[in-house]
Amino acid sequence: VSGTVEVAQLLFMLVVVLLLAKSASVVFNKFGVPGLIGEIFIGILIANLVIGDWSLLEALGLGGGNNPTENQYILDVLGELGIIFLLFSVGLETRVRELISVGRAAFMVAILGVVIPFGMAYAFMMFQDGNSTHAMFLGAALVATSVGITARVIKDMKLTDTKEAKIIIGAAVIDDVMGMVILAIVVGMATSGSADIMHALTITISAVVFVFATMLFCLKGVPKINEYMKNRLRSQKAQSCDADVQGQAWKAAMMIITCLAFAVISQWIGLAAIIGAFLAGMIFADNIEEWDMKERIDILNIFFVSFFFVNVGLKVDLSSITGEILLLAAVVIIIAFASKYIGCFLGAKFGDKSLDKSSANIIGIGMVPRGEVGIIVASIGLAEYAITGELYTIVVMMSVITTIVAPIFLCRACRKKYCGCQEQNT
Amino acid sequence: VSGTVEVAQLLFMLVVVLLLAKSASVVFNKFGVPGLIGEIFIGILIANLVIGDWSLLEALGLGGGNNPTENQYILDVLGELGIIFLLFSVGLETRVRELISVGRAAFMVAILGVVIPFGMAYAFMMFQDGNSTHAMFLGAALVATSVGITARVIKDMKLTDTKEAKIIIGAAVIDDVMGMVILAIVVGMATSGSADIMHALTITISAVVFVFATMLFCLKGVPKINEYMKNRLRSQKAQSCDADVQGQAWKAAMMIITCLAFAVISQWIGLAAIIGAFLAGMIFADNIEEWDMKERIDILNIFFVSFFFVNVGLKVDLSSITGEILLLAAVVIIIAFASKYIGCFLGAKFGDKSLDKSSANIIGIGMVPRGEVGIIVASIGLAEYAITGELYTIVVMMSVITTIVAPIFLCRACRKKYCGCQEQNT
Repeated sequence: VSGTVEVAQLLFMLVVVLLLAKSASVVFNKFGVPGLIGEIFIGILIANLVIGDWSLLEALGLGGGNNPTENQYILDVLGELGIIFLLFSVGLETRVRELISVGRAAFMVAILGVVIPFGMAYAFMMFQDGNSTHAMFLGAALVATSVGITARVIKDMKLTDTKEAKIIIGAAVIDDVMGMVILAIVVGMATSGSADIMHALTITISAVVFVFATMLFCLKGVPKINEYMKNRLRSQKAQSCDADVQGQAWKAAMMIITCLAFAVISQWIGLAAIIGAFLAGMIFADNIEEWDMKERIDILNIFFVSFFFVNVGLKVDLSSITGEILLLAAVVIIIAFASKYIGCFLGAKFGDKSLDKSSANIIGIGMVPRGEVGIIVASIGLAEYAITGELYTIVVMMSVITTIVAPIFLCRACRKKYCGCQEQNT
Repeated sequence: VSGTVEVAQLLFMLVVVLLLAKSASVVFNKFGVPGLIGEIFIGILIANLVIGDWSLLEALGLGGGNNPTENQYILDVLGELGIIFLLFSVGLETRVRELISVGRAAFMVAILGVVIPFGMAYAFMMFQDGNSTHAMFLGAALVATSVGITARVIKDMKLTDTKEAKIIIGAAVIDDVMGMVILAIVVGMATSGSADIMHALTITISAVVFVFATMLFCLKGVPKINEYMKNRLRSQKAQSCDADVQGQAWKAAMMIITCLAFAVISQWIGLAAIIGAFLAGMIFADNIEEWDMKERIDILNIFFVSFFFVNVGLKVDLSSITGEILLLAAVVIIIAFASKYIGCFLGAKFGDKSLDKSSANIIGIGMVPRGEVGIIVASIGLAEYAITGELYTIVVMMSVITTIVAPIFLCRACRKKYCGCQEQNT
């Protein structure tokens, strides 16, 4: 009856990837390196391990083989679902009141974390080749923050409850809104020669309305719904012997649907799917303890999220890197790291005087990973013929390296401040 | 960095399908119809709802649209993962000792549930068009049992612990082994004119070894591993502040990997993936209470399994059904229902004298749904030019109708025997 696909090869790929990723995660962890780096490492290994005629990528049906695109597509989708459920999970641990309480600091971190990287990248590129379109795209790529990577480190180390975590998450949401507006302006200027102010304004307004409406709903709507639900469940329990179990399955389904729906809305508006997933998580933050759903939702991460980090590594083609590109990339990576760190460090210090140096340090490092967002910016630039293939490769390298290196420093900084706690094993 | 795909449309499809499926499940349940029928109904609705130029299938990107195959492929894969996790979950609730204790009854149910349907289908087809190849394929299709559908009803009604459930599951495993052997023989006779006895023997032996080796491992290996693990975790706990949480995530990952690995091995041998998943579940059955993993693994079902049942409905193309086909299909459906029911009812009565009529009734109905297995048999027949397109359509209709109708009777029979308990809501 079902459209049962020929899944033997697909399941084989999934189980090998999961086994390698989880094992690497455990091994890296033993040596004090965040588990996700182990998963990215497995991705790089799969993409580049060739012994004679045999390539691991082909053996897993992820490239060169019979249906490489289908297996790769599944991996992309599972990874995307993974990062969505991860941010949903982070949202579940973030109460909206706490987020508002760090609002000023988050705003300052986001502003300086946008202005300084954009300015430095623009200045460097104008000095390097004098093409203002290239300079703007590099600027837009360096503005991006991929909060998924930081979220994973924070979650693995069980630090979601800290003030630093709240500021990073809050700043990432604001950063994403600003990043999308800048990208819209840059694309407009590259394609039509002038900034499409109306378009940029539309994105800004709809994004701000979406974020604030959700937060308002958390504050005002959720308590009322809870009241209603409790009364309803109480009357149900009298009727049926397992209304409680029914309620649990129903709640879980409702949470997953809300998470995916918010991810979709977020993408429609022009924001990242993970921002919507995070906001959806916040809706349930007040209930999650009582519902006893925390550990259950975490299983979705445990299954899905490794695929995301393996995928990060899979995009690294070591053979395409030349000496010339390497040199330029090194400079761009240093700028990417330094500009975001300085901007966000200063933002944290200005935004909240009570934060000490070690906290501002954590926030600065936490905002460094560009992840997939940097790549998306570069892909758009390449598709619009606004940047060269060389610059594209450099941006990809910048995104990958910041994603790999930042968690190592972040982990160390967190361990220094909150010593005694180790990150999770998988 | 990640291979972030253009997921907006995909996520939209997933969230609409989930929302419709879960809602229909709740509504159908209110009227005493099993929730999975509601989910299949949504599938039929999506496949066939056309208003003027607008079709729901196209709107969801599942057909006719820009990339119909990719969205459909994702749905197939998520559904397949869903049914795998569902059977894993059923395995988690099945201790191997209990399964062995119903071994004789399960074996009798499987034997008579194979011989009678095959004989009746063969006789009917020889009488109908006299083609022995057609007759053999219809026989093989009617032999199939898709335990997934029954497993869902049993699980929703919280009856996994009953003797009837154990017999059905045990018989389904044996039935699957015999069904695959028959299919191998039938395909061999249709393509080369003679039965490939060596091939059939290879499948039989490897399948039996796989099933018995796993059961032996459950009985002998698992207790030893448990002993070792407990000692190891105890020493770890002394070292780190959250070794317990580490252990939980590690256990969950290990369970998921084992489940998928067994599904792959099962497919390699020639059995259904779900048989492997069920056996993998049994490995953890003794630990699942203590590990507190039951509800967590269930989340994987809650997310994935609706896609499977929606998919069942999606394959129903109402417009392809003509009066002539309908008549022949009606006869085949009656044979499919009656032969399996009679065979398994008698098997249960002969196999275990202590079973009363109502228990044999439940077992008989529980074995009726042919699900995807019947369709797979027909697809192979069609691909080998051994059966006609008309007969293929009839087998698909038989599989769909037995899948839709049997749960309704099963639910009623279970409620009659175990009254007071209602099925789950989602």
